[in-house]
Amino acid sequence: MRERHWRGKPGAQHGHGGLGNNGRHRRRSERRDVDAPIVLYGWHTVTAALSNPARRIRALWATENALRRLADEGIKLPVEPELVRPDAIAAQLSPDAVHQGLLAEADPLPAPGLEELAAAGVVLVLDQITDPHNFGAILRTAAAFAVAAVVTTARHSPEATGVLAKSASGALELVPLVSVQNLARALAELKEHGFHVVGLDSAATDDLAAMELSAPLALVLGAEGKGLRQGTRAACDRLARLDLPGAIKSLNVSNASALALYIATRWRISA
Amino acid sequence: MRERHWRGKPGAQHGHGGLGNNGRHRRRSERRDVDAPIVLYGWHTVTAALSNPARRIRALWATENALRRLADEGIKLPVEPELVRPDAIAAQLSPDAVHQGLLAEADPLPAPGLEELAAAGVVLVLDQITDPHNFGAILRTAAAFAVAAVVTTARHSPEATGVLAKSASGALELVPLVSVQNLARALAELKEHGFHVVGLDSAATDDLAAMELSAPLALVLGAEGKGLRQGTRAACDRLARLDLPGAIKSLNVSNASALALYIATRWRISA
Repeated sequence: MRERHWRGKPGAQHGHGGLGNNGRHRRRSERRDVDAPIVLYGWHTVTAALSNPARRIRALWATENALRRLADEGIKLPVEPELVRPDAIAAQLSPDAVHQGLLAEADPLPAPGLEELAAAGVVLVLDQITDPHNFGAILRTAAAFAVAAVVTTARHSPEATGVLAKSASGALELVPLVSVQNLARALAELKEHGFHVVGLDSAATDDLAAMELSAPLALVLGAEGKGLRQGTRAACDRLARLDLPGAIKSLNVSNASALALYIATRWRISA
Repeated sequence: MRERHWRGKPGAQHGHGGLGNNGRHRRRSERRDVDAPIVLYGWHTVTAALSNPARRIRALWATENALRRLADEGIKLPVEPELVRPDAIAAQLSPDAVHQGLLAEADPLPAPGLEELAAAGVVLVLDQITDPHNFGAILRTAAAFAVAAVVTTARHSPEATGVLAKSASGALELVPLVSVQNLARALAELKEHGFHVVGLDSAATDDLAAMELSAPLALVLGAEGKGLRQGTRAACDRLARLDLPGAIKSLNVSNASALALYIATRWRISA
């Protein structure tokens, strides 16, 4: 197992979540885009995948304890598991990865097209958010707020594997990820489908909590520091800020997503 | 500079933010507790420290670009900076650390006592939240919500240095950190000072957003997975959950903090 071909794959590495735009990794990334599996580890992440009929599991490694717990909880295994020691899993991951005795290789999930989102309540649009921890936490929060989909760019977004999947804590199985080539064009298409497109910007004049919002709604968030790109900003119907009373006026992007979703779905409109 | 004694200090390492409870590092941690400096890097983190009169800076390394930007923005330097190349700073940090040409060594800030928080609007209490990224993001959000202090345990909390400071994005200078030996006793003391103590628990019956809250308020959050410890839970006046409409019922702890603060300060009570 120590020699398996996914060892050291960027997607399974801490803080370098398979951006795939690094020259050194290009060949490996290109190959993975076609048919290489994604890596899932950790109890919530793997059991959510095992319980998702749409997720094709290619291989499963489990410790004795994890296998017993899977049996205790009556979770059906779609493949024959390979019994391993904890350190055999740890050796495949970054030193701080909490794998809880489970690691799976799986196919990526099929993604819906934008045209399938027309009846959606709220979608979240992420403009070049590259950190896999943040991206994963946003997916988890999106699942908690019953978001219909997360739309993101094919480039400059982390792959749905490894650290991102772990941070999403099972949400990868629940929230469809729609990957687009051009975000401004995607926002235009969402508008054609009736979406109200609101971009979050800490320098905006209008407070999201005081704004009239309507469903279907697309909430657009940019990377910390950079914010929304010019083309993304221009493609929004409105820009809004979160009204923060303290000395710091911008939040970690996953925290900003949580607040924006709360305000939009629980307070201003009914999702 | 490459040989400086803080090289490889756990607080500057990714994902191992100086927990100081690892046997291998014990001697180094004990020494640091007494007089070793904390490490600050990144533009927001370092400039916030430079602008804080209460923060004693021991040393400052800066690239040519960073020095020019400091001069452009009129930021006064309390010590003579050492001009270095970016890779000299990078060599002191984990590979994914974004230092933006600035690194400082500084003294920890003096912490207020619990008795000084009596007039506070809201304090956040963290029960063994060990991840320095999450802890830092919580501090940043606490600063955005004008939280009076963050109370945490001396043990099983990350040190206020390195990754935590970077994730806090300057908030370490704004939100006092109160470190206590025994959290249940600290909560009892807060109650004596008139605090309403509410613990967040995803299994609680009551929805935080529907609860009568009063200031001063202490919001208590536990680690993901483990939640609040039994003694912490018993020391709360009330337990509350965040009402989440989706399939996932628990959030990343920093996202949960953001929502709890929003609900408590903007909706239910005036901070």
